[in-house]
Amino acid sequence: MRLAILGLGLIGGSIGLAARHRLGAEVVGFDPDPAGAELALEREACDRLAADVAGACDGAEAVFCAAPVHALPALVGAALEAAGPDAVVSDAGSVKRGLVEAVAGLGGADRFIGGHPLAGAETAGAANARADLFEGARWYLTPTAGSRGTLYDRLHGIVSELGARPEAIDAGEHDRTMATISHLPHVLANALAERAAKTLIGGERRPEVGRSFRDATRVAGANPAIWADIFTANRDAVVAEVEAVAAGLREAATVLAEGDHAAIAEWQASARERRQALLGGGVAAGPLRELRITVENRPGTVAEIALALGEAGVNIEDMSLFPAPDRRSGAISLWIAGSGEAERAAEVVRGLGHAVAPGEGG
Amino acid sequence: MRLAILGLGLIGGSIGLAARHRLGAEVVGFDPDPAGAELALEREACDRLAADVAGACDGAEAVFCAAPVHALPALVGAALEAAGPDAVVSDAGSVKRGLVEAVAGLGGADRFIGGHPLAGAETAGAANARADLFEGARWYLTPTAGSRGTLYDRLHGIVSELGARPEAIDAGEHDRTMATISHLPHVLANALAERAAKTLIGGERRPEVGRSFRDATRVAGANPAIWADIFTANRDAVVAEVEAVAAGLREAATVLAEGDHAAIAEWQASARERRQALLGGGVAAGPLRELRITVENRPGTVAEIALALGEAGVNIEDMSLFPAPDRRSGAISLWIAGSGEAERAAEVVRGLGHAVAPGEGG
Repeated sequence: MRLAILGLGLIGGSIGLAARHRLGAEVVGFDPDPAGAELALEREACDRLAADVAGACDGAEAVFCAAPVHALPALVGAALEAAGPDAVVSDAGSVKRGLVEAVAGLGGADRFIGGHPLAGAETAGAANARADLFEGARWYLTPTAGSRGTLYDRLHGIVSELGARPEAIDAGEHDRTMATISHLPHVLANALAERAAKTLIGGERRPEVGRSFRDATRVAGANPAIWADIFTANRDAVVAEVEAVAAGLREAATVLAEGDHAAIAEWQASARERRQALLGGGVAAGPLRELRITVENRPGTVAEIALALGEAGVNIEDMSLFPAPDRRSGAISLWIAGSGEAERAAEVVRGLGHAVAPGEGG
Repeated sequence: MRLAILGLGLIGGSIGLAARHRLGAEVVGFDPDPAGAELALEREACDRLAADVAGACDGAEAVFCAAPVHALPALVGAALEAAGPDAVVSDAGSVKRGLVEAVAGLGGADRFIGGHPLAGAETAGAANARADLFEGARWYLTPTAGSRGTLYDRLHGIVSELGARPEAIDAGEHDRTMATISHLPHVLANALAERAAKTLIGGERRPEVGRSFRDATRVAGANPAIWADIFTANRDAVVAEVEAVAAGLREAATVLAEGDHAAIAEWQASARERRQALLGGGVAAGPLRELRITVENRPGTVAEIALALGEAGVNIEDMSLFPAPDRRSGAISLWIAGSGEAERAAEVVRGLGHAVAPGEGG
């Protein structure tokens, strides 16, 4: 099988590596940036480079467009033009509806099926490409009524072979879902950073910020080029979510302003249940349990704990560190899947002489 | 020196331990819950227990009220009544203005100085009390024009001896600052969990949620009893912050709806700068740098990395793990203070064979 990959960054490079190692495919790559293309070839993410889109698509059974979101409509159009009449063309963009609509009007639209692997936003560039980037990852596919069935079947098979878990979804539903679970948290992080800056910066006093603020703003201002693309492409859905949360906040403000302790406690408890229900969705080994550990923050403490848990065969699903301002002490939260595992983990950590308490929830 | 501690949970117990070990003080404790009191005595957080507030305050030079926020006005009132004319009375509540105002009308108000150590929200109960809980931690004190200077001086000294860094702040400014950096992130986490539950739960599809959602909702629904207290006591400031962020979100929605790519990218970039400016405030060793590491998620990987950094003398200031859905691979973000240290850390981690990329920012 021959694959063409147009755009040899982290995602394109990883598709190439996985396709070569796991599918035994021949991979022909193209990237408008010659340095990026060379790096991908060095990393063996493709067998050879093509000079242009047409050269890469020549003879390919599947074409993956792995370019920034704003560049995808033109690139997919060029790929449909260049690829053979039986080649499936897909992409890996984070937003789908606009692209699917743009392609619908083109000749060969029946050969295009949009895609979005939920992997790899953490790093960038072919330097970080890995053959196992998609291992176990959800990979959304957005076929339409006009998509050719045999090509969907082929794409589904390829994506599975790359190690991912393909799932068909309507492009609009995809975008709305992503708006809620990914794009909205980014907007909220920005809004919080903005508000805090307005309140706190410029005054004489610069208060230390704690873990809740760090966690809540962690993605504030994430890669402006990529995120401007995503926000622009998905603005209808994102705006709807942002407005809905703004309305939710006004309701919360009303509840808080009334100062009814029982109503506030109930609101708080329901938020806890909601988060647990949402996070529980993807976890097979049981709901996540939080362990809160108070430790000395010397170099090596995290290692000691993680190592002991590793030796005990306990996997850490998630972790958050909160150093005290003196950097000598602090708290670590660990999330462990399943109550039994969490109990076992707590025993291991207590055995190291640290205080362990159950956290507030998932 | 004799101290009285009223309320022997995590904070009260830790004050007791620190006062006994670091100040050589005699500590008399009282807690309305006999089991909690006994546990604190067993943990040696006090030298002896008193049967009531009066018994604990008898002969004490300083009295710390370490009860839930809603219980503080009555407890401080009782302590002022019971304690001698030269005893300073303080507390450790997360909200200050209401308490300070409530006490202002009482006899002996000149002997009360409010306090708030920024420590210990991670765990609860005397079982988790530690002598070094306050080591290096900011400890706000809220004297008023009516506070007796000699008693402020004494309290400042005690708090320093406990290992903390006392700082005087107006009670209202304290509450507004906490509303921004602590209480508001909790409300936003709740609002996001609420919105996502509305959108996602109940449908056929339960999408996997990623790291941005986890981080953004980590404190959603934190301890409802404690947080209902905090939200109720600080509702004026919290409501103002929530309304300000709701307004900020409506503005953001307008920018997003206009779809001006350059304006959105600028908004994104400014959020990044703002967060860095806010987090940089408390960091002595240089601004935090993020390293993103892609790893196999087998038990032991986190340990291996943390251990190698520990051996190299690099301290991990903050950490976030993001397992891939298959639990076999994932990404780790580490935050290291200072560019030089971050470079060194990256070399160490690369030496272990992991891919390292710079993160999106602080």
